[in-house]
Amino acid sequence: MSGVWGNNMKISIFGESHGNGIGIVINGLEPGFEIDFDYIDKEMERRAPGRNNLSTARKEADKVEILSGIFEGKVTGAPICAVIKNIDTRSKDYSLLKDVMRPGHADYPGLIRYDGFNDYRGGGHFSGRITAPLVFAGALAKQILEKKGIFIGAHLKSVGKVEEAYFDSINLNKETLLSLRGKELPILEDKNLEKVKHEILSAKMEGDSVGGVVECGIIGLKAGIGDPFFDSVESTIAHLAFSVPGIKGIEFGAGFDYTKMRGSEGNDEYYMDGKCIKTYSNNNGGITGGITNGMPIIFRAAVKPTASIIKEQRTINAKTLEDTKLVVQGRHDPCIAQRALVVIETIAALAILDLIGGK
Amino acid sequence: MSGVWGNNMKISIFGESHGNGIGIVINGLEPGFEIDFDYIDKEMERRAPGRNNLSTARKEADKVEILSGIFEGKVTGAPICAVIKNIDTRSKDYSLLKDVMRPGHADYPGLIRYDGFNDYRGGGHFSGRITAPLVFAGALAKQILEKKGIFIGAHLKSVGKVEEAYFDSINLNKETLLSLRGKELPILEDKNLEKVKHEILSAKMEGDSVGGVVECGIIGLKAGIGDPFFDSVESTIAHLAFSVPGIKGIEFGAGFDYTKMRGSEGNDEYYMDGKCIKTYSNNNGGITGGITNGMPIIFRAAVKPTASIIKEQRTINAKTLEDTKLVVQGRHDPCIAQRALVVIETIAALAILDLIGGK
Amino acid sequence: MSGVWGNNMKISIFGESHGNGIGIVINGLEPGFEIDFDYIDKEMERRAPGRNNLSTARKEADKVEILSGIFEGKVTGAPICAVIKNIDTRSKDYSLLKDVMRPGHADYPGLIRYDGFNDYRGGGHFSGRITAPLVFAGALAKQILEKKGIFIGAHLKSVGKVEEAYFDSINLNKETLLSLRGKELPILEDKNLEKVKHEILSAKMEGDSVGGVVECGIIGLKAGIGDPFFDSVESTIAHLAFSVPGIKGIEFGAGFDYTKMRGSEGNDEYYMDGKCIKTYSNNNGGITGGITNGMPIIFRAAVKPTASIIKEQRTINAKTLEDTKLVVQGRHDPCIAQRALVVIETIAALAILDLIGGK
Amino acid sequence: MSGVWGNNMKISIFGESHGNGIGIVINGLEPGFEIDFDYIDKEMERRAPGRNNLSTARKEADKVEILSGIFEGKVTGAPICAVIKNIDTRSKDYSLLKDVMRPGHADYPGLIRYDGFNDYRGGGHFSGRITAPLVFAGALAKQILEKKGIFIGAHLKSVGKVEEAYFDSINLNKETLLSLRGKELPILEDKNLEKVKHEILSAKMEGDSVGGVVECGIIGLKAGIGDPFFDSVESTIAHLAFSVPGIKGIEFGAGFDYTKMRGSEGNDEYYMDGKCIKTYSNNNGGITGGITNGMPIIFRAAVKPTASIIKEQRTINAKTLEDTKLVVQGRHDPCIAQRALVVIETIAALAILDLIGGK
Repeated sequence: MSGVWGNNMKISIFGESHGNGIGIVINGLEPGFEIDFDYIDKEMERRAPGRNNLSTARKEADKVEILSGIFEGKVTGAPICAVIKNIDTRSKDYSLLKDVMRPGHADYPGLIRYDGFNDYRGGGHFSGRITAPLVFAGALAKQILEKKGIFIGAHLKSVGKVEEAYFDSINLNKETLLSLRGKELPILEDKNLEKVKHEILSAKMEGDSVGGVVECGIIGLKAGIGDPFFDSVESTIAHLAFSVPGIKGIEFGAGFDYTKMRGSEGNDEYYMDGKCIKTYSNNNGGITGGITNGMPIIFRAAVKPTASIIKEQRTINAKTLEDTKLVVQGRHDPCIAQRALVVIETIAALAILDLIGGK
Repeated sequence: MSGVWGNNMKISIFGESHGNGIGIVINGLEPGFEIDFDYIDKEMERRAPGRNNLSTARKEADKVEILSGIFEGKVTGAPICAVIKNIDTRSKDYSLLKDVMRPGHADYPGLIRYDGFNDYRGGGHFSGRITAPLVFAGALAKQILEKKGIFIGAHLKSVGKVEEAYFDSINLNKETLLSLRGKELPILEDKNLEKVKHEILSAKMEGDSVGGVVECGIIGLKAGIGDPFFDSVESTIAHLAFSVPGIKGIEFGAGFDYTKMRGSEGNDEYYMDGKCIKTYSNNNGGITGGITNGMPIIFRAAVKPTASIIKEQRTINAKTLEDTKLVVQGRHDPCIAQRALVVIETIAALAILDLIGGK
Repeated sequence: MSGVWGNNMKISIFGESHGNGIGIVINGLEPGFEIDFDYIDKEMERRAPGRNNLSTARKEADKVEILSGIFEGKVTGAPICAVIKNIDTRSKDYSLLKDVMRPGHADYPGLIRYDGFNDYRGGGHFSGRITAPLVFAGALAKQILEKKGIFIGAHLKSVGKVEEAYFDSINLNKETLLSLRGKELPILEDKNLEKVKHEILSAKMEGDSVGGVVECGIIGLKAGIGDPFFDSVESTIAHLAFSVPGIKGIEFGAGFDYTKMRGSEGNDEYYMDGKCIKTYSNNNGGITGGITNGMPIIFRAAVKPTASIIKEQRTINAKTLEDTKLVVQGRHDPCIAQRALVVIETIAALAILDLIGGK
Repeated sequence: MSGVWGNNMKISIFGESHGNGIGIVINGLEPGFEIDFDYIDKEMERRAPGRNNLSTARKEADKVEILSGIFEGKVTGAPICAVIKNIDTRSKDYSLLKDVMRPGHADYPGLIRYDGFNDYRGGGHFSGRITAPLVFAGALAKQILEKKGIFIGAHLKSVGKVEEAYFDSINLNKETLLSLRGKELPILEDKNLEKVKHEILSAKMEGDSVGGVVECGIIGLKAGIGDPFFDSVESTIAHLAFSVPGIKGIEFGAGFDYTKMRGSEGNDEYYMDGKCIKTYSNNNGGITGGITNGMPIIFRAAVKPTASIIKEQRTINAKTLEDTKLVVQGRHDPCIAQRALVVIETIAALAILDLIGGK
């Protein structure tokens, strides 16, 4: 069933792209945490559309209204409900799309899933916009984790065919992670900025789109978090990651490349670094047997190219069951990866907060 | 927390490699299904160790004893408990490993996770052996799904550095899927058999190991299965997949390669095939917006090289907190991918059965 | 953890008495159900305060705003979020109660539970007011159940020391159940109306309060609903009932009186009524072995007297840890049973809808 | 769905009365607890049948075999599986009962629930025998709780029409609770022993049965445990209690009698007892707003008379759909209350252990 996630915490998400509002209910946060609302605003801003010519022209204040669970600036421990009203909706853009299924989108599966009663406007409940309240929850989770010394950050490992550097998976530090948040495009090698921009804008000029790979790092987690069956750290992160629209793959540590190594090469050998247990390599991405081993957690998520493109596409009319053609109107992101990146950080934060529970 | 999974069904797994027994409790199967026990035996056999020189020499009858939930050969609807007793355990092999942490294994995270009280013998609850009862559950699930016209199969897309063919993701059929089950090594291109074997055996001769990529296909699923947040088909499969020891990545459809495509290239365009809605390509692996679109489901899981190798490795003693060296004794698989493959099929079957619920 | 309930459906509740708003998120309703909004308004009205001199003077429009999940008047299948803004809040009434614990209320347990960070105003998240969004969900559930021929109603079996008639547990019918909804006080024997009112108003005049017993009936359910361990019909209803503030007991069928019967007297013997299987008596309240047997479901919930009274009470100051005295100010119900009754119907409706799932 | 329960812990129960075995899987216990196996044996013995002429003549060793999760006498933290093999089964006793429905039993609802595929022998999965593994789990839970200073005990408040004393709900102590475990019949007033026995044996001589009320007390719990919605202490205990066969009612503190009190009488006023916060009365049974207030928890469960009686009863044949008569054969308890009492203590222990989680 849709909508509810978590063990030690529970989040419940709701909303449609062009309905009255979208939001989230968050259960299970510890009472007394003093919230930094600026922090939340900045995070919301990172995901928000309409910030520059690299994303959709749709502008949403994405102003979060808190209905419950926060009193005198602090978490009460009762459920937190946060709502974002939808304002800049142009539903007429989508009226033609009731029956004509957009390729690469959830229109057709959604139509069948909800027996034709789904709110189809702007993708409805499938819209990437529904991740905005998730980012709110993530901004809370990140703050709480940072107080515990756990930091999360992500960069674009690739955009389209432009490859970027990997995180240093052994020595990943807080400074690197936090510096990425302030960047126009979160890439490790600033010298590549124009190259990456060009990849996005050239697709945009052609009415097309590109995808990308987001690499996310988490530092500060002690060894011993997670469970072998069925709530491994990887299971928990992957479960949430595949709820983010457009994600088609996830890998931890060396991931698919790990399969090409011999065991003798791939095993992360231990050594004592003073009183700390560390590993010489980090092919396991900080997780062995589903459980943290104290090294940085590293994972990469594959973000497919934005499905909405201006080019003409072949499709069908689900009502008449006939072949047809479609040019998608409306405002779209030529690359969603840089906005999805904030959501990937978010799901990492939520997954970790859930896994550590009261620990 | 460890051990329980599912929404429409619930499975509860237990056991340690060298304890009294391992097993599973399965809740939520529909009453009246007549079980084919030969089918189960064959599936158990596919995963079982000691079958040829490509796997560990440990031999386990893996004979399943059913304690409950099956009456007169049929599913009653009450919880099914199936137990496998451990017989061929050589605990002395592992006694040295109480304090010396094997690289690539869960020894160290497990020690911390369970405050030093875990059964460390043979990896304990982290052992790949715990997947045997899972395969039992999967053999039940597969039978039930097959009655509904849903078929699942997997092959080795790669072993170490040897690449194999992809499934035909558009026209994948039952015959291909089922034929793989009878093969000595489940590969699509029989001409490559010796090459693949050689990759494994050459690692074995060096006391080393190799990994691989398992590609799994599911056909016969209608459109409309799954949920956008937070129980997408990808979320459900990935959650379970990352409970399988040694899995470090998963990708659906074109996966990470999808990120290199333009939207116009990657979108799966629809067309009418008679009265059926199909797509020209299947880059989304049968899932858009987290929901099935009626095309074959295709995913690939990265299996890391077996962590147990005979070569000397650097590690630490977790008791004395000193550096040390280790040569792992015992019987091990030079490549776990071909046995993990059955478990990957299993988790696919369980995920799908859970997602379709009563549908 | 607080806030989320359900298996086949999931509800997530939030809000505090004097916060910005209260509400609920409802997951898992089947798409396409056309909602009768008048029905909802009438149900909300039944629970709403300030309707006559039998309840608190606090007036709340209790106007429900629907943020998501309903499109063109129909259930979409995506999560429904409904919000009620708090308007008539007089927080100053409660400012003295931050440290002085009201006897019979959740003030003290809540203070400890939430480490002193709970919103104490008006009982905060513990307020009976939080049941308003629950009633919204129940009004939806009741409509859906009525389309399936399942009807739910409740009456006051007793108010304070005034006893009323029992439901006819064998022949309970739709007319009886529905007629109760329109009554000023939902009692079976109209001749007792003044007696019941007098019981309430005499307590009110003394600045005191009374409790009551709500008897609830459910008809139209087929045999075979529920599960033996751990989701019996009784478990499911009782779980929700004990979330309603002020409920201290629940019994099914003959309940506690059943323990005084011999087995030969208490067993409900079967007979064929045409092609229907019925029982001569209904001491089991329509449930045996945790599962419906096709007879009307009957249960009774004990509602304690309203804790808020005007009389002086002994208590402690939780800050200074000293004994003190308290006269509770503010507007209160002399009897909460008649308003709790709607909530009891609600939880019955939610429990049943959850149990029948797709059936 | 049947079979799985818990939040901070998860238990999964399985088995049928006359199948191969019954058992339980327990997840989420903290590693390192050293188990007192004598304690477990004694608890199993308390519930076991065939101990004296007050219970059924069926004798079961009820010897628990532990398959996993315990290593060197200590909890490992991995799932614990405990199995009891069925030995003394006389299935022929039940063969006539496949179609003829026993009044008061789950035969008919079970037949419908499981589409006729349930194991009907001896009540199958509905048998009270399935509570034996639950008692094993409870014996573990009780030990763990006792180490934390939390003690649980129960007595027979009434048997048939014989009333016994209530617990002293203000000053309930450990000695009283523990002394009850050693008694032939767990009653507070030893002078009543013969009267209670006579009530049971006179029913037995007539081939009939009696019910009873079990009163359970829990001491040593701090204030602040539980949640308002939807996991109150009452919800959690009641949920489990109504999974125990034959339970038809539950009430906390003054329960149904509370409804007859005025608020001024019923409110539990606070006072400082040195540095402790206590209440003068305990009508709320240690729980207000769903959360513990530090006073003893008191609840009573109504156990209906054993449904199996030797007297002839009217019933139907579910196959031929005709009226018929039935004299139940086999060995039965004339009163199940004294054995159910151990199960009631068990569910109290499990509920509390789940609620306190890591606290």
